[in-house]
Order: sequence, then C-alpha cells, then structure tokens
Amino acid sequence: MITYTPIGYVQNNFNEPVPPAMIRETESQIVLAPEYVEGLNGLEPGQKVLVIFDFHLSDGYDLQQHPRRDTTRPRRGVFALRSPRRPNPIGVTSVELVSIEGNVLRVRELDAINGSPVLDLKPA
Amino acid sequence: MITYTPIGYVQNNFNEPVPPAMIRETESQIVLAPEYVEGLNGLEPGQKVLVIFDFHLSDGYDLQQHPRRDTTRPRRGVFALRSPRRPNPIGVTSVELVSIEGNVLRVRELDAINGSPVLDLKPA
Repeated sequence: MITYTPIGYVQNNFNEPVPPAMIRETESQIVLAPEYVEGLNGLEPGQKVLVIFDFHLSDGYDLQQHPRRDTTRPRRGVFALRSPRRPNPIGVTSVELVSIEGNVLRVRELDAINGSPVLDLKPA
Repeated sequence: MITYTPIGYVQNNFNEPVPPAMIRETESQIVLAPEYVEGLNGLEPGQKVLVIFDFHLSDGYDLQQHPRRDTTRPRRGVFALRSPRRPNPIGVTSVELVSIEGNVLRVRELDAINGSPVLDLKPA
C-alpha cells in the first residue's frame, strides 16, 4: 500500500462525473495548499503542465470496459483506456497553464471534476 | 490521505538511483500482478504507454531544487522539475511497449529503477 497526501484540490462547476470533453472546455482552478507555493517557481503561463489527480468519485472498476461506456464498441482492457474506473483511480492530464496567483493556478483542458484531490504537478 | 495498491513492479538492473538517461537506454520489464492481465487487452507492441509509478527510494523533498542536482543552475520549484524528491514521489513516463507476454511487459525509455511499484498504465 502506498499513501499520498493531496497537495491541493480542483475547483470548477462540475460536481458529478460528466463526459471529459465537457469539463475540458471550461477553465478550472487548482487550489494548492499554501505551504507548497514555493514549489511553483519556474512554471510560466502558456506552459503545458501534467496534473496528477485522484478520481475521487470513481467506485470500483472492471478489467474490461466499453470505451466511453459505448456498448456498441467492443470491450477493451482498462490499461488501454483512460476510464476513471481503474484499479488505482489516478488521472494524468496535460493542461495549459493560464495564470498563477498566489496558491491558485488557472488551467485549461483539465478533465477532473470539482473537489478532485491533486497529487502532483510536473512540466509536461 | 489517499492509498493505492501497486498493480506490479519494475524489473531492470538498476538497484540504486542513477541519472534517468542511463536507465532509459536499457529495456525494462513491468511485471504485472497476474490478476490484472485481462486489463492489458488492446495494448499493442510499438504503442506509447504512460507508466505511473512510485519513486520508492525517494526520501523527502525540497520545494526548490537545482535541476539534476547541478548546483551551477539556479534552484527551481519542484513542480517545475521532474525530480523524484517531491511531496508525493510519483513518476509518470511515456514508454514504448516492446512486447507483452502473459503478465510481463517489455518496455523502452522507462526511467524507473528496479523494484519501483507500478500504480497504473494508460495509453499515452
């Protein structure tokens, strides 16, 4: 067992799972715990950043799933899909950094819902 | 606190941290726990795969670090670096899948050392 402590949380208007394309079109905020702000030094607006987060509402998984729950498409292995229903519900998304103000990052193209715990940020 | 259970482990000849470029040049194996094999269905040799793993030998972190421990370069925030010394020591690397045989994946360009716990695999 491996244990992590969130470094922050996602804020946007999506409180329930929706198709990822819908979230990606709106801007999200990543609210970092204030003690980590110094760790943002060197990230610049316009840059791509990898956001590693937990699909906190994901409940269980199947090893084989229909892509995007589309039952007309054949089932595939979960490791060949980006589905949130995975053994470890970790999301990894490359986002565009819009701005940093204090401990708040505004980003585009993030597909995590409101309240998702953020585990890490890296240059993409 | 968020807890994950490894889905497998990395196997290669590097038992201690070395510069990532050195590991990337050699092939590694990812040995998946047998119960997850069905989840690989749809991954094909030649494909790029994201490997999410734990830097299990990483011990603590600094919010600002010299890139690649090169003290001639100015310190930067840990979230602007790929250093393993991070608040949550998670690695995310895009690798090339060479082959799958049963529960063993051979991959190129992975920069994780021997014994690293693997948390997730995703199409890159």
